[in-house]
Amino acid sequence: MIINIIQIGLGPIGLGTVKQLLNHPRVQIVGAVDPAPDKAGRRLAELFPQNSAPDSAGEIMVAPSLEKALSLCSDKPVTAVHTTGSFLESVTSQILELAENKLNVVSTTEELAYPWWHHPKEAKQMDDFAKKNNVTVLGTGVNPGFVMDLFPIVISGISASVDSVYVERIVDAGKRRGPLKKKVGAGITVDEFNKRKATGQFGHIGLVESVAMIGAAYGWNLKEISDDLKPKVAEEPYDSPDVKVAPGDVLGIDQTATGYSEDGTEHIRLHLEMYVGARQPHDTVRLTGIPDMHVTVENGTPGDIATVSAAVNYVPLVTDAPAGLKTPIELPPPRWFGT
Amino acid sequence: MIINIIQIGLGPIGLGTVKQLLNHPRVQIVGAVDPAPDKAGRRLAELFPQNSAPDSAGEIMVAPSLEKALSLCSDKPVTAVHTTGSFLESVTSQILELAENKLNVVSTTEELAYPWWHHPKEAKQMDDFAKKNNVTVLGTGVNPGFVMDLFPIVISGISASVDSVYVERIVDAGKRRGPLKKKVGAGITVDEFNKRKATGQFGHIGLVESVAMIGAAYGWNLKEISDDLKPKVAEEPYDSPDVKVAPGDVLGIDQTATGYSEDGTEHIRLHLEMYVGARQPHDTVRLTGIPDMHVTVENGTPGDIATVSAAVNYVPLVTDAPAGLKTPIELPPPRWFGT
Repeated sequence: MIINIIQIGLGPIGLGTVKQLLNHPRVQIVGAVDPAPDKAGRRLAELFPQNSAPDSAGEIMVAPSLEKALSLCSDKPVTAVHTTGSFLESVTSQILELAENKLNVVSTTEELAYPWWHHPKEAKQMDDFAKKNNVTVLGTGVNPGFVMDLFPIVISGISASVDSVYVERIVDAGKRRGPLKKKVGAGITVDEFNKRKATGQFGHIGLVESVAMIGAAYGWNLKEISDDLKPKVAEEPYDSPDVKVAPGDVLGIDQTATGYSEDGTEHIRLHLEMYVGARQPHDTVRLTGIPDMHVTVENGTPGDIATVSAAVNYVPLVTDAPAGLKTPIELPPPRWFGT
Repeated sequence: MIINIIQIGLGPIGLGTVKQLLNHPRVQIVGAVDPAPDKAGRRLAELFPQNSAPDSAGEIMVAPSLEKALSLCSDKPVTAVHTTGSFLESVTSQILELAENKLNVVSTTEELAYPWWHHPKEAKQMDDFAKKNNVTVLGTGVNPGFVMDLFPIVISGISASVDSVYVERIVDAGKRRGPLKKKVGAGITVDEFNKRKATGQFGHIGLVESVAMIGAAYGWNLKEISDDLKPKVAEEPYDSPDVKVAPGDVLGIDQTATGYSEDGTEHIRLHLEMYVGARQPHDTVRLTGIPDMHVTVENGTPGDIATVSAAVNYVPLVTDAPAGLKTPIELPPPRWFGT
């Protein structure tokens, strides 16, 4: 059965999901929303560089609002793919509106991957709304949503016991799209880094959510989760066509979130480095327990394509799931679904 | 809430699950079945070497039959942990009996991990029975059930497309319990190996089931699955306290299952070597597609403890799942659950 989708948000990630959804035999896009003046009112295909979108997108007009988009849809959508932002503060009302319109939601909002730690009030509200409207809401992506949380959780499926979890992810931001280089602060000074850090909206979003998800999966009653963000400072000059970093300036981020139990014992440590010029990028999971497990993703899980794919791959699982706000540990394991 | 368990089968794997279940804060064993004359009629604790079982097992008498065990239970069990054999031919009637008694079933029967390819009739019958009796039935274990099927499936959760799957698992049988060394034929001649192979019940059971599970997860309409079993022959003498192998004799197995689509294209190849003296044991998953993924479990996932743990870890998931015969791709991801 074909699943009818409405796409909410047409930034780089949203255009990525659109591209995968358009090529997918089991789904079809029936509507799209983005209020940006250079997007609303245009055909979906026009938003792709050099009109590289498949013809099947030709019919879809981008609407400035959900209400307008729904009035334009010829087929009723059942599930929304939502890619508008990282923070619950700005997306909760959007998700409530989607749920009220009886739409399941797969969202790439980082804080939604496991919202029960930092945003229990919003989580409860979304869960109640979703149940009342008989829809499912899920936050996913490569990180949070996969590499540093679901992946170590699944590996523990064969564990007799787990004492501690360590995940290390090293990403070469130089090989990622421009916005990511900017996001990690490549090329700025340490002073500027610290100013941005003080806003509370700089650095990787979701590391605390990943720690909380692992804690919840294992039934650990975590008492505290710390989130420590530092600049990765250049020792030598870094030079690339779009970013130059002088010695002493910032290559990117060096961030660690740590989960502690009641008695102050450290149980979970997630360490993320995203910076231009990172050597030997990789993801490594170490579970200490019975047995010890040591798992490595060579070269690391690629970022943007993996976030886009995770959202697309969850579409059928979320569409079929029981109502409520779910996290990845409550749904069947995500998998590519070819046909 | 405490889950009441009945344990069916008290061989090495069954005793392993008993040990984990006894130590577990969220479950309790309320009954046990094994018809073997040296087990039935004895207290569960007596079956452990040197009475190493915790005291809490003291009360449980091993019954020779399910009927007898149920009559002895003070608390009604809701879920059975079933560890009696590898082949559906010998366990299907046991599973139907468990389902008829309104018991959910977590089984380590290898052919049950994905029974729809080789045993669609039995699978349908178990599914019907389970649904009629409102219980859930699942086959799990380290392999099949995890390393060579669920693990690569989960990794594809971040894939935009998968062209082919290759999994390699190299196990040093010399470091495993006696029955495994025997199971892989360590120390026998190549002639004897071929005689055992001709029975159709020798070699690793479940490789074809793993291929079929991956095919089903991806929606690939596999046309054929081959299963090629060869002896791993000693070039040098192998010498250990319990097994000696002369050059030219058998160290263990070298087995490959391959899944082909309609047009003869190879899509899935699972390669397993289990032999005494294996160097650099490991599990490796390679997905070819977008993106290519290369994941390695250093030293490989340990066998017996992982099978036992997978069964225990699925207990709460199976107990809570909708009715029917399920496979690991239909339930939430397994995870150690501490408290």
